[in-house]
Amino acid sequence: MSATPDRDADHSGGWRTYAPLDLHPVLLHAMAAFNEHGYHGTTVRDIARRVGVTVPALYYHYENKQALLVTLLETSMSDVLGRCRAAVAEAGDDPVDRFSAIVECIVVYMANRRGLAFLDSEIRSLEPENRARYVELRDSLQYMLLDTVEAGIEQGSFTTPIPADASRAILTMCQGVANWYRSDGALTPSDVAERHVLLCLGTVGYLAPREPAKPASLRQARENAGARTRDSVG
Amino acid sequence: MSATPDRDADHSGGWRTYAPLDLHPVLLHAMAAFNEHGYHGTTVRDIARRVGVTVPALYYHYENKQALLVTLLETSMSDVLGRCRAAVAEAGDDPVDRFSAIVECIVVYMANRRGLAFLDSEIRSLEPENRARYVELRDSLQYMLLDTVEAGIEQGSFTTPIPADASRAILTMCQGVANWYRSDGALTPSDVAERHVLLCLGTVGYLAPREPAKPASLRQARENAGARTRDSVG
Repeated sequence: MSATPDRDADHSGGWRTYAPLDLHPVLLHAMAAFNEHGYHGTTVRDIARRVGVTVPALYYHYENKQALLVTLLETSMSDVLGRCRAAVAEAGDDPVDRFSAIVECIVVYMANRRGLAFLDSEIRSLEPENRARYVELRDSLQYMLLDTVEAGIEQGSFTTPIPADASRAILTMCQGVANWYRSDGALTPSDVAERHVLLCLGTVGYLAPREPAKPASLRQARENAGARTRDSVG
Repeated sequence: MSATPDRDADHSGGWRTYAPLDLHPVLLHAMAAFNEHGYHGTTVRDIARRVGVTVPALYYHYENKQALLVTLLETSMSDVLGRCRAAVAEAGDDPVDRFSAIVECIVVYMANRRGLAFLDSEIRSLEPENRARYVELRDSLQYMLLDTVEAGIEQGSFTTPIPADASRAILTMCQGVANWYRSDGALTPSDVAERHVLLCLGTVGYLAPREPAKPASLRQARENAGARTRDSVG
């Protein structure tokens, strides 16, 4: 698992920037195999065949199949966490901006890293100790989101009476993008992210425009709604 | 697949009522095996062993492993669709009530039928023709939701400029309940449903209370917010 902390730290290229996925070939092929046939439907021999190495050669790099899944899931979660921290830092002090930055960051991640994000459905295949460590990482993403929701309530920008439920639901909604997003579709990752920011602001009770806006002017709609909310709150 | 239409029709016991899951033992054991080891990680022999029958005896009931997955997924989707139709019929004409009824119905389903709902992650394992038929069923659930969102926009109750994105996100959010709900936890299915109605009304730009409410009075909060919105719109 020594690769995890490194990935976490390096977002000097910007949290919105996605280079082609840079993983050890064994991990890339394991990811593809797990996505196609599931964790339990994949053998170490299948992965070795995809990589084009012998089974012992594969074991030289990774202890077993479980280690591959753990490394993939933790690498993914550490990457999204690191990006979200960078996004929040860039967003400044306003909870609405911080909340929006996290939502944008998660959605852009899910659209760009579908192969890794989809593995989230294999949490059930983690051994208890590995599962606990992964859930802890995922919980810290949810707490990061919850912090911004609670700060937004505190300053009167968000009105949801159930910030914890809202944060969990929003994380679910954003992670779900990995299940349907297609890079050859009509929307770019940042289009999808922008729409989710609008939807999620609604979910936490922020957005209440009186007139339906046009999809083309989402950002404007949000700014108008924000101005209106701030006016009416004081 | 002949079982599917029957389940679809019968909700005389009420769409909120859940008897213990009544499926052929082969289906129940297939569901458990798929959930534990994934579709590709499960053999027909595994299922036969769980049921306590021979492999040929199992083939007498179901053509192959794919037929089991198809039957489980279609039974589940038909059941939730039938319940949602009953819920919408009971809700009457108001789009806000219809929308709320669908959200409640889906969430209560996901909390009560986790074992079936969780199989949604195995859509990738369906053969193309079966997958197309299942996606069509799921799309009709999304369209049912979208109809109520568009009707709500039409009458000025919902303000989201992106009803299709909102409907997909809401379905994702509600389906996600199957991944974390525990029947021995603090919340009943109907508690979770009530919270999701509140969150989802926010997502479509309905709910904009000026004062944070207490979790205990969610329904009251919604009613107040509704009254306020109607006042300010009309």
